[in-house]
Order: sequence, then C-alpha cells, then structure tokens
Amino acid sequence: MSDVIDLACDLIRRRSVTPEDRGCQASIGERLQRAGFAVQHLRFGEVDNLWATHGQGGPLLVFLGHTDVVPSGPAESWTTDPFEPVIRDGLLYGRGAADMKGSVAAMVVALEAFVAAHPDHRGRVGLLLTSDEEGPTNLDGVRRVAEHFRATGERIDWCVVGEPSSKEKLGDLIRVGRRGSLSGTLQVRGIQGHVAYPEKARNPIHAFAPALAELAAERWDEGNQDFPPTSFQVSNLNAGTGANNVIPGALTALINFRYSTASSAGDLRKRTEAILDKHGLDWQVDWSLSGEPFLTPPGGAVREAVVSVCRDLCGVPPEESTGGGTSDGRFIAPLGAEVVELGPVNATIHKVDECVSVADLEKLPSLYEAICIRLLG
Amino acid sequence: MSDVIDLACDLIRRRSVTPEDRGCQASIGERLQRAGFAVQHLRFGEVDNLWATHGQGGPLLVFLGHTDVVPSGPAESWTTDPFEPVIRDGLLYGRGAADMKGSVAAMVVALEAFVAAHPDHRGRVGLLLTSDEEGPTNLDGVRRVAEHFRATGERIDWCVVGEPSSKEKLGDLIRVGRRGSLSGTLQVRGIQGHVAYPEKARNPIHAFAPALAELAAERWDEGNQDFPPTSFQVSNLNAGTGANNVIPGALTALINFRYSTASSAGDLRKRTEAILDKHGLDWQVDWSLSGEPFLTPPGGAVREAVVSVCRDLCGVPPEESTGGGTSDGRFIAPLGAEVVELGPVNATIHKVDECVSVADLEKLPSLYEAICIRLLG
Repeated sequence: MSDVIDLACDLIRRRSVTPEDRGCQASIGERLQRAGFAVQHLRFGEVDNLWATHGQGGPLLVFLGHTDVVPSGPAESWTTDPFEPVIRDGLLYGRGAADMKGSVAAMVVALEAFVAAHPDHRGRVGLLLTSDEEGPTNLDGVRRVAEHFRATGERIDWCVVGEPSSKEKLGDLIRVGRRGSLSGTLQVRGIQGHVAYPEKARNPIHAFAPALAELAAERWDEGNQDFPPTSFQVSNLNAGTGANNVIPGALTALINFRYSTASSAGDLRKRTEAILDKHGLDWQVDWSLSGEPFLTPPGGAVREAVVSVCRDLCGVPPEESTGGGTSDGRFIAPLGAEVVELGPVNATIHKVDECVSVADLEKLPSLYEAICIRLLG
Repeated sequence: MSDVIDLACDLIRRRSVTPEDRGCQASIGERLQRAGFAVQHLRFGEVDNLWATHGQGGPLLVFLGHTDVVPSGPAESWTTDPFEPVIRDGLLYGRGAADMKGSVAAMVVALEAFVAAHPDHRGRVGLLLTSDEEGPTNLDGVRRVAEHFRATGERIDWCVVGEPSSKEKLGDLIRVGRRGSLSGTLQVRGIQGHVAYPEKARNPIHAFAPALAELAAERWDEGNQDFPPTSFQVSNLNAGTGANNVIPGALTALINFRYSTASSAGDLRKRTEAILDKHGLDWQVDWSLSGEPFLTPPGGAVREAVVSVCRDLCGVPPEESTGGGTSDGRFIAPLGAEVVELGPVNATIHKVDECVSVADLEKLPSLYEAICIRLLG
C-alpha cells in the first residue's frame, strides 16, 4: 500500500474520539522531525496540539487539521469495526477516514515530499493539528493556539484547511469562507398559574408566540456575492411542567444565527432584542459567539493556488463556496491569514461506515504538494 | 370536641393520597349503616367508591365528595405533620382539612342528624364518595359510578358537591355550574436537519409560530350570562434535541380549553384544526374531553335551597358562580341532576399548611342538614 494509506490506517486505528489524540500527534511529530521540521507540542488543558514548521522567514503557509474524531455510535451498526481500517471496493472504511485522518495523512506525506524536493524553499511551511475540533466547545484547540500565536507574534499568511470539502469528486468544491455562528439562550418569563384561572397567570408561550412568528419570518439580510443570506433557527423550545392544568412560569428557547458578512453579530443581537422588546416580553438572552464569518476574497494567492491546483490536477474548476457549518479556519482567519479549505468527499462524514476513496486519498498529497510548490517552491 | 371535628381528624390521619382511600369509606359506611342507610362499596379497578342511601322512592338528593387528597409535598415544609391533625388559633390543619375531608365529615354528621330527626322523610337522601377525584384521569371514580348508575337506571334529581367553594367566609360563594375542559396533544411535524443547512430541513417551531400566535390571540366566544368567555391555554410546548446545531423534526404542545356553554367541544376542535390547516402544517391532535360544561339554572329546587340556606344561616346571599376548575359534578350533571357546590373556604387547598376554620366546620353540618330539610323534610 502507499505511504498515505498506511498512515491513514495507522491514525484510524488510534481511537482518538474527541478530545483524545491517542498518540496520533506524537507519531506525526516524529516523522516531521525526521524530515527536518521544528516540532512543538502545545498541550492546553486536556487537548493536544501539534505545531511543526520548516524553513525560515516569511511568508508562512500552514496546513490545518485535527486528529480527533466524532464517536462511532454503536459499533454493531457498522459493517466492520469503525476503528479497524478496511479497504472494500476501492473505499477505505473507518471513523475519521474522511473527517479527517485521511487529509491529515495526505498533508504529512505532502509536506515530507515538498521539503525533500525543495529543501531551500522560500518562506516557511507548517502543519497545525489539534485534538479538539469535534467537541462541543473547542476551547483548548485551535482557538487557544491562535491566542498563543497572537501572544508570540506568529503571523500566518496562508492557511489550507483539510476538512472534507468535496461534494461528489475530489476537488469539485473548495471553501473560501465560512458563515459566522451566533447562539443565544432565550428565557421568556411569565407568571405560573392554574389553567382554570388564566386571569391570575401570564402564559409565556402565548406572550412569545407573536415575537416567535416575527423572528421566524424576519429577513435578516440578503447575503452578498460571497455568502447566502443569514439564517435564523430556533433549535430548541421548552415550556411547561408536564401537567396539562398548569400555565408555565417561563419558556426557554435556544436560537442560532448562521450569518453572512452582510450582517454583524452585534446588529443581529440588537435586532433580536428589539423584536422581543416590541412585543413587551419579560426576556433575557445569554449570547454566545462561536465564530465570526470570514472570507478569503478572489485574487488572494492561496485561493488562486488552490483553484489552479484543483483545475489542473482534478480536471474541473472547483465551486468556490462559503456554505456549510463552521471550521477551525474561523480561528486562523482573524490572525490575518487567507484561509481556503480543500479535502476529500464529505458524503459519509459523521455517519456509520464513514469512508474515503482510496484513489482520492492517494491523489490528495499531490494536490497539497502542488499548493506548496506554487506558493513557496 | 364536636362530632364533625372528631370525624374530620380521623379522616385526616388516614394517609389517603389519591387514589388511596385507607379505610375512610369503610369507617363512614359502618356509621351510616348504623344510622339506617343502605350501603354499597363500589370498587372499580384500584378505586374505592361508597354509595349510601336512606329512604324510598323519589326524589333523590345526593351529597357528593371524595376521600382522596393531593400529596402533601415535603412534610418538612409544613409547620406540623400534614397527616396529624392539629388545631391552632381556631384552625384545623392537615392535608384534606379543606379539600375535602372536612366537608365529608360534615356531610356524614348532617345525614345522621337528618335521618334521626326525619326518619320518614320523603324521597331518598344519599352520600356518594370516591377515592379518585384528585388523580390525573379519574377513570374509576365518579365517572365510572355514573356509568354504573346509567346502567342500573339510578336517577339523581339533586346533587350537592362538598368541594370547598367559599372565598373568604363560609357560604359567600356557591358554584352553580362548571366550564367544560377539552385537552389536546398536538404534534407538528417538520424535517430534522443541521442548522447550517436550513434549506434541507423544515423547522416545526418556525412553521407553528404564526398558528400559535393566532390560536393565542383568538377570541373563542364572548361567554354568556352564566359563564365567562372560553379560555385557551398552551400548557406545555417542547421541541428540540438539546443540541443547538440540530433543527428538530417535530414539536409537541399540550393545549387546553376551559369552555363555556357558548361553545361546544366539537366547534372548538374544528376551529383549532382549521387554524392549523390554514397555516399549512403537518399536524395531528389527540383530543381528550375531560368534562362538558354544566349549568344548574336559577329557579331549580336545589339551587334555591342552597342559596336560601347560605343567606339564612351565613347571613349574606352567596355569589352564584360558574368559575374555577372542574369537579366530579361534571359526571353527575349529565345524569339529569341539578348540581350545586357548597363547601368551606378554599384559600389553602393543595398548599402546605392546608387548614379549615373550626367554627366553619362546626357550622357546615347545619347547612347540609338544612338543605335536606328544605328538599326532603
């Protein structure tokens, strides 16, 4: 088997369910050290982060990935053991095969090849890995590494995230930005009472209903050339004691904005609160901003490089998208970096029988290496 | 102590938390048997019901009560043990003192006195007790006894329910009817998905919002001279997986109408369903009718008798109300009976330190006996 498949299989065997790393980074760190990289293990809290660089001076191109995976769910739902990599019909199966131990293996192999062929490349090339991308908070992963970089004055020019971006075939879609994510826990207070005496109570469900209808119908923005319109969702809504004869005293809703650069988190908060006020509610919102939107505009070097590499090596110009969820790119972009995401087909990620095409995975190192050559060769 | 206080204390000591009876009815049945009553124990499922009558032929006047009580909640919240009756400052404390072991004791003492003084009274006088009034379903209590009466051809002319009806002083309010109660479990279906891809999901919270606003704002009727307007309440509303990045696949709401005779249960169902349809929802409602409204109009013998007794023995004409929750009277009224409710002050019912005025409780048997005398003496 090829080097990239071997390494991907080795990583899949390590049961690094978030935020565990299970030795993935130690193994990769040793390889890159042998290849001449300077390697730092940045452990924050319970989270392992690896930072490996090669070269001197600017500019700096960073490949970004994660060694943690989402849980497999019941192993018996899988055709074969989720942590025992198996190749069937040209597909490599295992938890993390596509998201994103395959890409991590491809990055490592690409970096080894690039520095071997270009020992005196210009600038620096680096690999940043975390074991806390899939968890609920990501406090000690790339978010924390970015704080560390800010404090130490490390400046990143270009970042290629290896998240599985492709839709149907390798390189058919790259991400050139991501929407922001703003969450809130909303509480609407009423007055509890007996349903037979509604005049002595104030039902927060009834009070909230017209505000909810207005929030759900609101057009927050029209998006722009780079982003779809901002989307608002109430993901959870709960009120009531369980008894059908009690008017509840409070209502709780979890709300989430996925927002474009056409809006700011501050504006969305203000507009939400204005609607709550307009309906005379007794409300409170605890807001949480998990990521500002970022965009790598056309014409930037890394975006041009990634587009060219996909077109040249995969045969079609990729779709340049800002859709989908969030990624760790949201922590790197605010450092001033241009961020682009390119990885394998994402059809099976987070599902049972997660898999990646062996042919795609064997091709991916050449794409990453070609990006290095274009930018630093 | 007086006979009625003694009996009330004996009943309070029996921890007859719904649907338990704990020997209350056996003890009362023996007393009434000694007084010349024909006594039947009607046990349905896990529920005790007592049916005791005295006399021959029509008309039939029935006193209706229950021996079960709501749970005490944490006993340490009470000043003294909720199941150990104590008199302090003219008040008898204990779970059930006001709702309604006090009234039950008063009915027993009144019936004994009445048949002793009027052994050859006209018609029949009876006592119906259940141990399943406070529970969630009341399936095997008076609802079931009423079915039994319908099957056996028992016809009730007048019914006095001993539920604590009084507001501030004994006899200041009687109930001459009750609103109906119609409940529904509403499910609105959507399509589950990731909040980052709302175009692939259908959020049932958003879909339901305008329908909810319309339902909450609807004026169902204007009430009439006997009833306040129909009231609609959503008592419980739940949707969501707990995660803030998942659009839920369904929403569940518990709804309840307390409705006047100005509306029918069928109309309310139809109008609710029309609003759900109008908003294009994928919905389902499981309806449950727990009681139709009933009204004992002015001029009926039992209403006149109760009003006169309150005015003569308590000093003021009582307010004649149809407000409040439901009572077991809803099962007796459909048998063709005129139903009126008269009992002690209800300020502390279902609360910690439930209590009843000793003076009121000592007076209550004379009110019930006077009703017997007016109707059957």
